[in-house]
Parts: sequence; structure tokens; C-alpha cells
Amino acid sequence: MANFGGHAIPGSFFLLFGLWLTVKHTLQRYWRNNQLKGRALLPPFFKRMDYIEGGLQIFASFVGIMVEQFVVDGPHARLYDAHNHSWVKLMNWQHSTMYLFFGISGIALVVSTASKLVPVGVDRLALSLALFVEGFLFYYHVHSRPPLDAHIHSLLLVAVFSGSASTMMEVFMRDRFILEMLKAVLFILQGSWFYQIGFVLYPPSGPQWDLTLHNNIMFVTMCFCWHLVLALFVATCTSTAVWITTRRMSRRARDIEMVMRKKSSTANSEKALLEESEEE
Amino acid sequence: MANFGGHAIPGSFFLLFGLWLTVKHTLQRYWRNNQLKGRALLPPFFKRMDYIEGGLQIFASFVGIMVEQFVVDGPHARLYDAHNHSWVKLMNWQHSTMYLFFGISGIALVVSTASKLVPVGVDRLALSLALFVEGFLFYYHVHSRPPLDAHIHSLLLVAVFSGSASTMMEVFMRDRFILEMLKAVLFILQGSWFYQIGFVLYPPSGPQWDLTLHNNIMFVTMCFCWHLVLALFVATCTSTAVWITTRRMSRRARDIEMVMRKKSSTANSEKALLEESEEE
Amino acid sequence: MANFGGHAIPGSFFLLFGLWLTVKHTLQRYWRNNQLKGRALLPPFFKRMDYIEGGLQIFASFVGIMVEQFVVDGPHARLYDAHNHSWVKLMNWQHSTMYLFFGISGIALVVSTASKLVPVGVDRLALSLALFVEGFLFYYHVHSRPPLDAHIHSLLLVAVFSGSASTMMEVFMRDRFILEMLKAVLFILQGSWFYQIGFVLYPPSGPQWDLTLHNNIMFVTMCFCWHLVLALFVATCTSTAVWITTRRMSRRARDIEMVMRKKSSTANSEKALLEESEEE
Amino acid sequence: MANFGGHAIPGSFFLLFGLWLTVKHTLQRYWRNNQLKGRALLPPFFKRMDYIEGGLQIFASFVGIMVEQFVVDGPHARLYDAHNHSWVKLMNWQHSTMYLFFGISGIALVVSTASKLVPVGVDRLALSLALFVEGFLFYYHVHSRPPLDAHIHSLLLVAVFSGSASTMMEVFMRDRFILEMLKAVLFILQGSWFYQIGFVLYPPSGPQWDLTLHNNIMFVTMCFCWHLVLALFVATCTSTAVWITTRRMSRRARDIEMVMRKKSSTANSEKALLEESEEE
Repeated sequence: MANFGGHAIPGSFFLLFGLWLTVKHTLQRYWRNNQLKGRALLPPFFKRMDYIEGGLQIFASFVGIMVEQFVVDGPHARLYDAHNHSWVKLMNWQHSTMYLFFGISGIALVVSTASKLVPVGVDRLALSLALFVEGFLFYYHVHSRPPLDAHIHSLLLVAVFSGSASTMMEVFMRDRFILEMLKAVLFILQGSWFYQIGFVLYPPSGPQWDLTLHNNIMFVTMCFCWHLVLALFVATCTSTAVWITTRRMSRRARDIEMVMRKKSSTANSEKALLEESEEE
Repeated sequence: MANFGGHAIPGSFFLLFGLWLTVKHTLQRYWRNNQLKGRALLPPFFKRMDYIEGGLQIFASFVGIMVEQFVVDGPHARLYDAHNHSWVKLMNWQHSTMYLFFGISGIALVVSTASKLVPVGVDRLALSLALFVEGFLFYYHVHSRPPLDAHIHSLLLVAVFSGSASTMMEVFMRDRFILEMLKAVLFILQGSWFYQIGFVLYPPSGPQWDLTLHNNIMFVTMCFCWHLVLALFVATCTSTAVWITTRRMSRRARDIEMVMRKKSSTANSEKALLEESEEE
Repeated sequence: MANFGGHAIPGSFFLLFGLWLTVKHTLQRYWRNNQLKGRALLPPFFKRMDYIEGGLQIFASFVGIMVEQFVVDGPHARLYDAHNHSWVKLMNWQHSTMYLFFGISGIALVVSTASKLVPVGVDRLALSLALFVEGFLFYYHVHSRPPLDAHIHSLLLVAVFSGSASTMMEVFMRDRFILEMLKAVLFILQGSWFYQIGFVLYPPSGPQWDLTLHNNIMFVTMCFCWHLVLALFVATCTSTAVWITTRRMSRRARDIEMVMRKKSSTANSEKALLEESEEE
Repeated sequence: MANFGGHAIPGSFFLLFGLWLTVKHTLQRYWRNNQLKGRALLPPFFKRMDYIEGGLQIFASFVGIMVEQFVVDGPHARLYDAHNHSWVKLMNWQHSTMYLFFGISGIALVVSTASKLVPVGVDRLALSLALFVEGFLFYYHVHSRPPLDAHIHSLLLVAVFSGSASTMMEVFMRDRFILEMLKAVLFILQGSWFYQIGFVLYPPSGPQWDLTLHNNIMFVTMCFCWHLVLALFVATCTSTAVWITTRRMSRRARDIEMVMRKKSSTANSEKALLEESEEE
């Protein structure tokens, strides 16, 4: 939607998604680093996180599609206007298509969390595809626009396609914290850049930007790098905060946990410890 | 061949090939997941599937070359017309070249199934090359055509080159179900997109498309993504159906199989089981 | 800064950085090859080298930013001139942004040397990002310049983006000497090419170059390859010299070291040796 | 050199090099497959092959540089003509630069065969660089030429850059026969394509080609694929012939070899066999 809100809403979603990924992967890393080697499986807590994430993705993209279709000046699920021999509101249809792929990504996440028969990595492949399709549609979106408009959208593509490539690599290299954080950073970057696009193309206050001035293009290019710094900074701070909080909480909880764990899995852990000590 | 049928025939082949790959790789995965670890080799059944696949590829590309050459308005194996100083029917020659590479891919599959001396992965490399050559020839095919015609063919290239890259990765990462399914999906996508090209450029009914209208280009781009959704859906459903059917059949067959296996390979499997139990 | 010095200063930095990397990685390789397998950790000496490297990077980029901002004709930290409705000295701001990323890379190196909680490879990812951002900003830097000017800068991009890709690969393949040396060579190449740019665009003596002559472009392209030969030669010689010197010194020092090591870690090394001899 | 011979000479070199690589890597594979696992080292015979290969590369590139420089209409080692303010025979200088990199690749091969201190893979990296530089210089070579001339050279680049990428992958994945054969095929392709360029641009007999006709461009594109088929065929036949010959010879030689091996390395192989049997 060609106004400030139409860029702020997806921007907010991507920002929140990037933050969520930062938190999730930091918690997973904490777990991997601090648990006994004998317990390779992630606890049900992480499964529930994935269900929530997938469910929200499905819900959000369903709402997104509905809004794009049935907003006042939307296509109302009509694709071709046979009377005028023209397509109806292709822009809204394109956005719906993008949402659809994020919805599929959500379904893939839920299904691959629920069943072990689903091949490993399907969720990441689906997310990578969703980003690819987003970039693919944007790429043909920006033809024949004023220079600054085209440029600021093509910068978005840098974040989108990098995110797609980084997520694709996760299909083959699992549980690499650095790749997971890179993905999160690129989502945060994408989110904040959506805001920037909104501010530049539809300034909520102040004068309009000159969309043909070369200096504006130069500034916007540099500004993209600043957003990257910001995204790196936000992700690092969030991750550190989560790590420290978790450590403090888990220390406090250790005594209780120790007691509980002893009751529930004495046999297992003792056996694992015994085996380890025998190997040394 | 510049008509609807000329796009529907290759489209059907690619569609069927994609479905075949889905079925084959799902069966292979079922086998890998459900057999004893001691038996690493695939059974003769899979070998026979590969022979059939390779044989059909060779046969189909031979027929394809013959048709392209000896169709009524074909070149009849003449390449250069010395009288007019011009090349004869280069389009047909180009299509013959594409078929030739798929034929080579078939030969590579048969040979690498038959002999262990052939280096591992030659079949995938040959298939990747065949797709690359297809894309390579199409790439120089589409110059100086009307915008929509060029665009719809360049979208085909996305499927073709992605397929080539994905198959090339299989040379180095074997037995990754997710890569194999990606390849199958991209073949299905290619097949259905051939149909789409036929419907757009040579509509069997209804009015002609305006090949210069920007909105048509925008619609076609989005339509490509819908084909991708469809291909993902078809591949997922086929794979799930095959999986469930196989599981049901194999359960019914288990009793008989158990008896047969006991007779034929008692020594082997018992030894394997013994070794495993000793290791624990 | 558009003069000879403005290219010689970054050139010298990159040259020195490339040489430093050559020395550091050669020493690390010597250590890996010549130490007992039982001691996987690098000695504190290498940690100190990384602290120095990171510290210098932070310091140099801080100085660079300050100079770019507060030089006589600099922007003095003003970004937008509301009076003239124009951006202030975007060139200096762009250079500051580049320095900022190298500073971040320095911080990442220091932090990841100091703490084991920081995920492995963050330092290389940050360096790769710094090079990517440098190339990214340069890429939009060179539009609408005379042909030779644009060409000579785009050749720089070859070195910069190759360096970024090579460093990115180091994130996933650690302790590969050949990748580390490639990175060093590409930094030396970048450094010497900065000098070349200075000599061509702002010749300190002699006539100006004709910035539109095709032959000049051809020469400059070839000259880039010669710089590559030179960089390969310099890196090889430096590495060999460091290797030979270290071997000579370590032989002389062995007697003393042997005595010292015996005292400090008799138990450890004896145990490791014993285990190894038992395995044979 | 702009004549038929100037393309036939490098073409012959690349053809022979491709064939040589096919023979060498097939022999190495035969050795790897047929020797005892206990002997990981390649025999001195392969070392001698590498010395010869490297030596010939150095020699050929030295002769190439000399010829390019001191041919009658060559630059005679003069780079800049201060009198006319122009560069002297840049084409010859560019060719000399290409030869130089193949010479460096030869040096890298010799040195890395001779010493174990040289990091593994330096020879392949150097060959990959040589191909990259060749492609890099050709890329800026073909600007502002007639369409067919530019096109036929840009097809060469496909072979050159693919070869560079494939050789670069060998740096990280060693002893993969399929990659080695791909490299060999791409060298044969490059060689035969040089001949094709010679035949098209400087036909030794018959009429000149029309360098602007679109159909000629289409034919040449297809012709490149036929060269690829040819290269695949030649490499496969050569490799098979070498394999069969080696097997026949090694069977005949086995009796003698067995006797000799017993004398020279009884202790070693017996020990290895013993260890293996103990492990079972």
C-alpha cells in the first residue's frame, strides 16, 4: 500500500521477527552449551516456541492476505476484469503472494516441529523460498520508477536476498549460531529499512524528498550501512541481555531443577555420567 | 516448435519427470529410514528404477531429435544451405542439441547404475549439465523478442538454472532428501511453466495477449510464484501419498518378508544384530 | 579525499595489514605444525597479537573518522544543511562509515579473543562485512565519472569483494592456511592498488593521464594483474622469511624451552606422549 | 596474435593439457582404488608426472612470453613509447601477462610437489588464479568488437571461468575424481573452442563469416554445446582407455610386482595387514 503505514506495518513485523529469532537462537545456544552432552534433544519448551512462531506466521500472513484483498480499494478476490480487459489491482495480488509464501513457511515450521518424518531443514528451505519470492517480486516491482524510489527498493533487495542465501545455507549447516544471528540481523535490517522507505517516500512530516537528486541516492546508500550497524548493535545487545538473564535465572533455578531432575531421570543421567567417567 | 503443442509436449515430459523423481526419492528415503543399518546397499528394485529412468531418457531424447529433424518443415539433418548461404532451421537444431544432452544424462545414469567403476555422481553432473545447456541455449534464444515473450522465457530460466545448481549440489551432497525434492519441485515447476508459456503465447482459445503491456508482465511474474506454490503442493502431496502407501503395503508384506528374509540372509542380519548389541 | 595522499594513506594501511596477516598466520601455522598434538590451544602470545591487531584497528578507524569529520574542509559532524537544503560533504561521511565498519571488526576481534562465549568466527564475519560495506559504498561511488576513473575503481572492487568472499569462507572453514594467505594477498593487492589509483588520478609528477583513452583502460586492467603477481610474490617471500626465521630461532630456543616446559607441564606432556606411544 | 595460427597454438596447448590431466587423474584414481589402504602416499611415479607437468608449464609460458615480446612486430619489452605518448602493443603485453600466470601455476605445482611445507592446494589455487586472470583480461578484451567476434570470445569465457571455479573447488575438496575430470573437460573444451574461434574469425579457406548476422551468433552458441559434447566424449574415451590399459598392464605386472613388493616392503605391508585383521 503506497503510504507510510503500508511500509511501517511490514517493517514492524520484520523487526519483531528478527528480535524473536535473536531471542530464540540465543536460548537454544545457551541450552546447547550448558546441558549434559548425553541429552541431545531440545526440551519441549523449544518445540512450543516453534509452534508459536509457526502459528503466528500462518495467522499473520492469513490476515495480511485478507487485508490486501478486502481493503476498501482492494481487488476483493477478483483477478481479471473482463469488462475492461485489464488485471485488477495487481499490486495487492503481489503482496498477497508474498504473504502466502510466509504462510507456507509457517506451515513448514509447524509440520517439521510436529513430525520427525518431515525431512530436516524443510522449515529453513521454506523461509529461504519466502524471502526469495519476496525479493523476486520486488525486483520486477521497481522498474520505471523515479531513481531514488528504485534505488531505495533495490537496497531492500540486498537485505532480502542476503537473508534468503543465509537461510538457505542453514539448510545444510545446522545449529551454527553465527548463521542464525546473521539471519536475525538481516530481518532486523529489513524491518528498519521498510521504515526508512516509508520515511523517504511518504514523509509523515516535513518536505518531500527530491526523488531524482544524486546526493539523495548517495545519502540513502550510506544510510543503509547505518541501518546495518544499528541492526548488528540491536541483535548483539538483545542476545547478550538474553544470555545474562538466562544464566542468572538458571543459577537460581538450579537447586530446584537439580532436585526435579534427580527424581525424573536419575537413571539416565547417572548412566551417562558413568559412561563418561569410564571413557576418561 | 512455435505453437501450443510445441510447449505442451516438453511441459508434459518435465511434469512427469518431476513426479517420477518425487516418487523415486520418496521410496529411497523410506528404504533408508526403515531398513537395518547393516544393509547399506539399495535393493535391485531401485537399480531397475534407474535403468528404466535412464532408458526412457535415452529413448525420449532420441525420438525428440528425430522429430525435430524429420518433421515436415524440419531441417532433415541438413545444417548449412550452401545455395542460399544460410543456416537451415537453427531453432530445430537448437532443440535437438538440448535433447542430446538429456540423452547423455540418460546414458550417464544407466552406465553409473551398471558399473561401480564409474565415479559416483556422474549421473547428477550430467543432468546438471543438461539443464545448464538448456538454460544456456534459451538465454540466447530470447533476444529481440517482444517484452512479454522475452520475460516469460527468462522466468523459465529461473527454474532451469536453479534446477541445474541444485542438481550440481547433489554431486557433492548425496542422499539429501531435501535437495532431491527441490530438484523434483523445480522440474514440476518447469513443466507447468512450459504449459503457461504455451497458453500465453499461443492461446488455444480466447483472445491474444498483448505482448507489450506492462501489466501482463507483472501478472506473469506473479503467476510464476503461483506455479511454484502449485509445484510445492503437488510434490508434497505425491511424496506423502507414496510414503503412506508404502508404509501400509510394507506392514502387510512384513510377515511374508520376515519369513523370506530369514531364509535368505539369516547369517548376515543376525551377525549385524549381534555386533550392534555387543557395541552397546 | 581527492588527492594523492588521500589514496596513499589507506593504501599504506591495507598494505601493512596484509603483511601483518601474512606474518601472523605463518606463525600460527608454524605453531600448529610443530607443537604436540595434545596441546590444541594457541599460546598467550597469539592472543596478545590479536589484541594488538584489534586495538590498532579500533584506534586507526577512530582516528580516520575524526580526521574525515574535522579536517579543515570536512563536515564537522554536520550531516544536513537545513539552510541550503543539501547534504554536507557526503564523501567524508561515506569514508567515515567505511572506517566505522573496520572499527567494528576490531571490536569483534578483541571481544572474541577475550571471551569464549562469543560465537566462533564473529571476528571474520565482521571483517568480511567491513570489506563488503567498503565495496558496497565504492560501487555506488563511481557512477558518472570519466571512464578510466570508473574503471580503476571498479578494479579495486574486484580485490575488495574477493577479500570479503574469502573472509566469509573463513567463517566456515577455520585454520585453512591457504584461505588465510589468500585474504592477506588480497589486502596487499588492495593496498598497492590504492597507490596505483593515486598515481593515475593524481600523478604527483609528470603529465596527467587521459581519462577517456581506451588504451589507458586496457593498460590499467593489465596492471591490476601485475599488482596481483606482486602481492603473491611479497606474501610468499614474507611468509617464507618468517617461517625460516622462526625455525632457526625455535631451534636455538629449544634447549631452554625444553627445560622450562619440563618444569611447568611435565605431567601433561608426558601423559600425552605416553598415550600416543600406546596407540602405536 | 590476430590470425589463425595465433588461436591454433594456444588451442593445441589447452587440448593437450586437458588430455594430460585426464590421463594423470585416471592413473591416480586407479592407484587409489587398487592399492592397499595402508599406503596412503602416491608413489614417486606420480611425483615425477607432477614435476614434468610443472616444468613444461614453466617452459611453455617462458617461451610464450618471449615469442609475444620478441616476435617481429612485438613490443620488444618496451611498454611505453614516450615519443608518441602511447602504449606499445598492449595486446602482446596482455598475452604475456596471461602466460606469466600459467608459469606461476607451474612453479606452484613444482614447489608443492617438492616440499611438504608448502600448504596443500597451492597448485590448484594458482591454476585457478591463472584461469581467472585469463578470463579477466579476455573480458575487457572484447569490448567494441563486431557482435559475432564479441560473442564467440564471451563463450570462451564460459569455459574459462567454469574451469577457474571448478579448480578453486578442488582446493577444498581434494581427490574428487569427478571434479578433476570436469577440469580436464573444460580445458579440452577451451582448446577446441580456440580452434573454432580461429576458424570463424580467420577462416584458412573458404569465405569470410558475416560478423553481424544474427543467425551466425545463434549457430555459434549451439556449436559451443557441440564442442562440450565432444570434450565430454574425448575425456570419457581417453579415461576409459587409460583405465583398461592400466588394468591389463598391472595384471601382467602383478606377479613381478608381488615379488618385488615382498622384498622391499614386507615389514610394512605385513604390519598393516596384521593391524587391520586385529581391528576386525
